[in-house]
Amino acid sequence: MDLTEMFAERTARMKASEIRELLKLLDQPGIISFAGGIPDPALFPSDAFAKAFAQTMEGDQAGSALQYSVSEGYLPLREWLVGEMAKVGVPCSVDNILITSGSQQALDYLGKLFLSPGDTALVNWPTYMGALGAFNPYEPRYDQLSINGNRSAEDFKDSAKAETGGRVKFAYLSSDFSNPTGETVDRRGRESLLDLVDDLDCAVIEDAAYQALRYDGADIPPILAFEIARKGDIEACRTIYCGSFSKTLSPGLRVGWIVAAKPVISQLVLMKQASDLHSPTLNQIAINAVARACFEDHVSDVRKAYRGRRDAMLAALERYMPKGVEWTRPEGGMFVWLTLPVGVDGADLLALALETQKVAFVPGHAFFADGSGRNTIRLSFSCADEATIEEGMRRLGLALQAAIG
Amino acid sequence: MDLTEMFAERTARMKASEIRELLKLLDQPGIISFAGGIPDPALFPSDAFAKAFAQTMEGDQAGSALQYSVSEGYLPLREWLVGEMAKVGVPCSVDNILITSGSQQALDYLGKLFLSPGDTALVNWPTYMGALGAFNPYEPRYDQLSINGNRSAEDFKDSAKAETGGRVKFAYLSSDFSNPTGETVDRRGRESLLDLVDDLDCAVIEDAAYQALRYDGADIPPILAFEIARKGDIEACRTIYCGSFSKTLSPGLRVGWIVAAKPVISQLVLMKQASDLHSPTLNQIAINAVARACFEDHVSDVRKAYRGRRDAMLAALERYMPKGVEWTRPEGGMFVWLTLPVGVDGADLLALALETQKVAFVPGHAFFADGSGRNTIRLSFSCADEATIEEGMRRLGLALQAAIG
Repeated sequence: MDLTEMFAERTARMKASEIRELLKLLDQPGIISFAGGIPDPALFPSDAFAKAFAQTMEGDQAGSALQYSVSEGYLPLREWLVGEMAKVGVPCSVDNILITSGSQQALDYLGKLFLSPGDTALVNWPTYMGALGAFNPYEPRYDQLSINGNRSAEDFKDSAKAETGGRVKFAYLSSDFSNPTGETVDRRGRESLLDLVDDLDCAVIEDAAYQALRYDGADIPPILAFEIARKGDIEACRTIYCGSFSKTLSPGLRVGWIVAAKPVISQLVLMKQASDLHSPTLNQIAINAVARACFEDHVSDVRKAYRGRRDAMLAALERYMPKGVEWTRPEGGMFVWLTLPVGVDGADLLALALETQKVAFVPGHAFFADGSGRNTIRLSFSCADEATIEEGMRRLGLALQAAIG
Repeated sequence: MDLTEMFAERTARMKASEIRELLKLLDQPGIISFAGGIPDPALFPSDAFAKAFAQTMEGDQAGSALQYSVSEGYLPLREWLVGEMAKVGVPCSVDNILITSGSQQALDYLGKLFLSPGDTALVNWPTYMGALGAFNPYEPRYDQLSINGNRSAEDFKDSAKAETGGRVKFAYLSSDFSNPTGETVDRRGRESLLDLVDDLDCAVIEDAAYQALRYDGADIPPILAFEIARKGDIEACRTIYCGSFSKTLSPGLRVGWIVAAKPVISQLVLMKQASDLHSPTLNQIAINAVARACFEDHVSDVRKAYRGRRDAMLAALERYMPKGVEWTRPEGGMFVWLTLPVGVDGADLLALALETQKVAFVPGHAFFADGSGRNTIRLSFSCADEATIEEGMRRLGLALQAAIG
């Protein structure tokens, strides 16, 4: 099978951008894929969006929905977000919020705002590959942030001097059910991260893309909420919160938001104006209408569906994984992260799994800034039904048994 | 009047981004404004868009319209654009086209692709202030490109060495009815520009945002078409063409496109993926549907409306402008550019005009990379009816008479 061979050969040395290209090729009949990290389109609130577009385009708002608008974002949407942020312990005003074209754009802007060549960015090992893709053009060096905080500022100061040579500009992390591992930073981890960045005098970029998708366990406030609790006011905070509607309402409309102190937002608004003027007007109007009509109910339905798929995956992993394979037990999100026995290469396993079992996933090393993590893989449970998950894990187990030998 | 005083004080030393902020304040009852460079929302094909959104959201396409899509852009839209580009002398394939979030994003990406701090960008004096805004973050130096080509490569080589010190990376220009002057690069100008960039071995960024809005005179093919005619194939060309639906169908949906040789597009696709993944899926589907349904008929209606407004403005300028004021006679677009007698400052005139005549426009110096052009102003005729244009020019004439004394 040419595709499999090409994939096996190329995953051994590919970059994040190439992995994405190849993932498209995996969408073949007969292959069960846990590779794509995308929401299930069957769960989009299509009827609510259809109604929102119809009401906007048939009413007096049609002209303004198709016209240029302000770089800051649609005011009623920012007002709604002020209420949502207050619910999670982040009191703020509309001037603390910028609407972006998805949280990917937020990461690009923050890379552009903070990073000069040689500066250091702290990221988890592994981390969201789209974040590395957004930061890489600004030529940073990366150093390792542990997910629940066991490195001190002193470690990074030494590291910055000796190994990397650039000032630490920010710590980037996904706070809840992160892509790719499904792990969550616990309360103590959030507190120690804040200690660390205060010591380092650098920013925090909190990627909250999956925050609304918690299936069990107690909600943990955002890192920004912990910092406001310490410092009294968002204006005193160094945490920059990046939210997204991509995992709750629709990724294709490209609407996300940034919450931060006003001086940061002011700079990002100028950047937005220079880079694409504003996010599409109609999209923001529609997201606002749908969010106000049914956000909580809709997200509750989405959670229920994904919870069942996560449970099915965790149960099937118990049944089918050979000894020596370990995995995360995420309380939300879309991903389970597998650590294979040392010496089993995720890219080789993918080639074998495609060839012999017609099952696909993403080799884990693409999520490591240093290219390590070869014995890891990422599974997404968001787009498969429970029976398919069961069958897919059975096949993965067979492939793994063959690989382990 | 506080607003007027603030405006007068600030326009004397403001940046493009600040000008835009202040323009919003001019949208006051009683003020006739020729300041905003935006299309008339009454001319948007709102019914066609309403139909396109309804058909998309009520059919099988709803899920994919709300889902992630490819960074290159929606294939049927790129296919339609291949046909449109062929009509203006640019044979190309879908692989030569990237969909962007408006042409502003194209300018940002091209700045990022080409410019390192200290590199030289050639721009017209004056030029589109949004282009300066897009390029400025990459810290170029600017040198002056004359609109119809009377500087030789030797001039720029000397200039790059002696004054600016950076390599010339590209020449940026708006080819037709440019913002702000309304001027068009003639056939001879396009040919000599191509001679120049071949000598300089740099790219051309051709901003074709207004190209479809010609009201009289013969169409001139894009610079890219002239280069293809010389070199036989788009793959041999250094011109990068930036198109936009903002002036024809809708600016608020943020859909534009870039046409260039495949290696350039490939790099820009990676940049797009890293910066915002893709332009919104639904917006591209809707633009494609409306463009295929009625582009030519709709643009013909838009041309007719704007042609009447341009004629009204040129006729009223003849009637009301005092001696010593000169202006362009654009064959299309949205703008007329006035050169005032030396010593009359556009920002001072705006303060006076707002205070005494309640008429607004944009002082011209914001469009000059070197801050010169103080005795110039930009008038937009796109959003006012003919009677308002007549009255506005009468008021401007009175303000100018008072300023000239």
